[in-house]
Amino acid sequence: MSLSSEDIADGEGVPFDDRGLAYGDGLFETVLVRDGVATLWEAHMARLVRGGERLGIPVPSRSALDALPARAGAGLWVLKLTLTRGSGGRGYRLPDMPAPRLRWRVTPFTPSPERWWQGIRVRHCRLALGIQPRLAGLKHLNRLENVMARAEWQDPEIAEGLLCDSEGRLVEATSMNLFWQRAGRLETPGLARCGVAGTLRDALCRRLGIEEVDAGPETLESAEAVWLGNAVQGLWPVRRLDDDQGQKLADWRIGRLHRALQAEAHALLGYPCHDDDAGERDEEDEA
Amino acid sequence: MSLSSEDIADGEGVPFDDRGLAYGDGLFETVLVRDGVATLWEAHMARLVRGGERLGIPVPSRSALDALPARAGAGLWVLKLTLTRGSGGRGYRLPDMPAPRLRWRVTPFTPSPERWWQGIRVRHCRLALGIQPRLAGLKHLNRLENVMARAEWQDPEIAEGLLCDSEGRLVEATSMNLFWQRAGRLETPGLARCGVAGTLRDALCRRLGIEEVDAGPETLESAEAVWLGNAVQGLWPVRRLDDDQGQKLADWRIGRLHRALQAEAHALLGYPCHDDDAGERDEEDEA
Repeated sequence: MSLSSEDIADGEGVPFDDRGLAYGDGLFETVLVRDGVATLWEAHMARLVRGGERLGIPVPSRSALDALPARAGAGLWVLKLTLTRGSGGRGYRLPDMPAPRLRWRVTPFTPSPERWWQGIRVRHCRLALGIQPRLAGLKHLNRLENVMARAEWQDPEIAEGLLCDSEGRLVEATSMNLFWQRAGRLETPGLARCGVAGTLRDALCRRLGIEEVDAGPETLESAEAVWLGNAVQGLWPVRRLDDDQGQKLADWRIGRLHRALQAEAHALLGYPCHDDDAGERDEEDEA
Repeated sequence: MSLSSEDIADGEGVPFDDRGLAYGDGLFETVLVRDGVATLWEAHMARLVRGGERLGIPVPSRSALDALPARAGAGLWVLKLTLTRGSGGRGYRLPDMPAPRLRWRVTPFTPSPERWWQGIRVRHCRLALGIQPRLAGLKHLNRLENVMARAEWQDPEIAEGLLCDSEGRLVEATSMNLFWQRAGRLETPGLARCGVAGTLRDALCRRLGIEEVDAGPETLESAEAVWLGNAVQGLWPVRRLDDDQGQKLADWRIGRLHRALQAEAHALLGYPCHDDDAGERDEEDEA
């Protein structure tokens, strides 16, 4: 597809019959842009291409995509790309000639409260994610489960909610990936059944040898450390875990392991590393 | 909400930040309109209200909605309504003040090939629907599963594909509800875990005492009759069932039971009843 024939527009909406609106038939990416330079750009582009292949949606030319991050000015921005299958088809049936639409916007970004980088409180969600291997891992536009899960709590002190699948395995948080250390090993839920394969997650798994495992929620209560991360907010150590009623299940001191992981993650995103309590001894980390 | 403050527009699209586009955060209805009069209108409105309650999306005033079908002219039309949660919120978090958007369009409608009313060929899909009781039954905008399932076949002689859930229970077809007769009883899959509760389905269940059951796909092969239906296409008797490779699993003669059911369904939608082979004896129907 040549650049000139591509339907790419800055901040515009989509028509009534766009399949992204009608069916969530599309993909998105949210990219942290620092002074006009996209962070983890190759990983975002790789996921978009992977998603396009799985859904059968042609992805715009790389040259067109590569030009977008520079449209942000100095400072911190989020570039959001939404790629839909465009219009056409009869009902759910695919159009014979796909004419995808790419819409994008850059918005100034302020990270969540600074103190969340020091440690957050999370809770379990009641909603359990449906199992759908055909869509698992993709950042597609069918996100009602995430919306419904995020609506389960209003307390601003709860930073995130954790999600299991319908068979009781840990998957992720509503908008972040989940990681823990158990018996000295770094682990994260496998995402072959549901969940979003975050770009920061993939980078951390490769760099640190984090292992993909199947694990139930009780795993967290006996974990030595738990943390969340995504490519926009960075890495949040978990200091307290509540059940779905807000009752405490476990808590952790934030120590050297967390800070080392955060240093890895934040180097990729250009965020600072937080070690203001570095003088404090942390028994778990010394083990 | 007063009519004047409602964001209702004819055939317009939505802006980039609309949550319907971003997350599939909304609902839709497709209504058969005959000479400006909507069929099964109360049932469509009831489902929209039920969906709005489950998702927490305010539904526009009934007076505004009631005015829409008359915007279609003489003849057969489909009125499509798309209701989104509007813009706002931060990420998946709900906006503090929801400002939903209703978009609608009437399009001239031609039913599928006339001969499909006489009997269709269907196949099983490989895709299995994820189980999500929180969204089950709703006609929400997260329909990638339906899109992916419909993409499994291109043969124009295959009218529909049948879907099971991830635990192997029959649910529906990609855009129709599924029914069968077994040991003289009329049955349809329960929809507490996934699937769309069609308005024609609900009407037929109430009128004919069709029972909701849990059943595996093998149920169909020994059924006395199988049929599909929705509120736009009407009722299609199934004459042949294939597996997901296109190999025949079962076939049925279309007989008096099918025609009686179709007469019920088509009376609700104003379609004709097809009995051109009424003279033919049908042993199953005589049983």
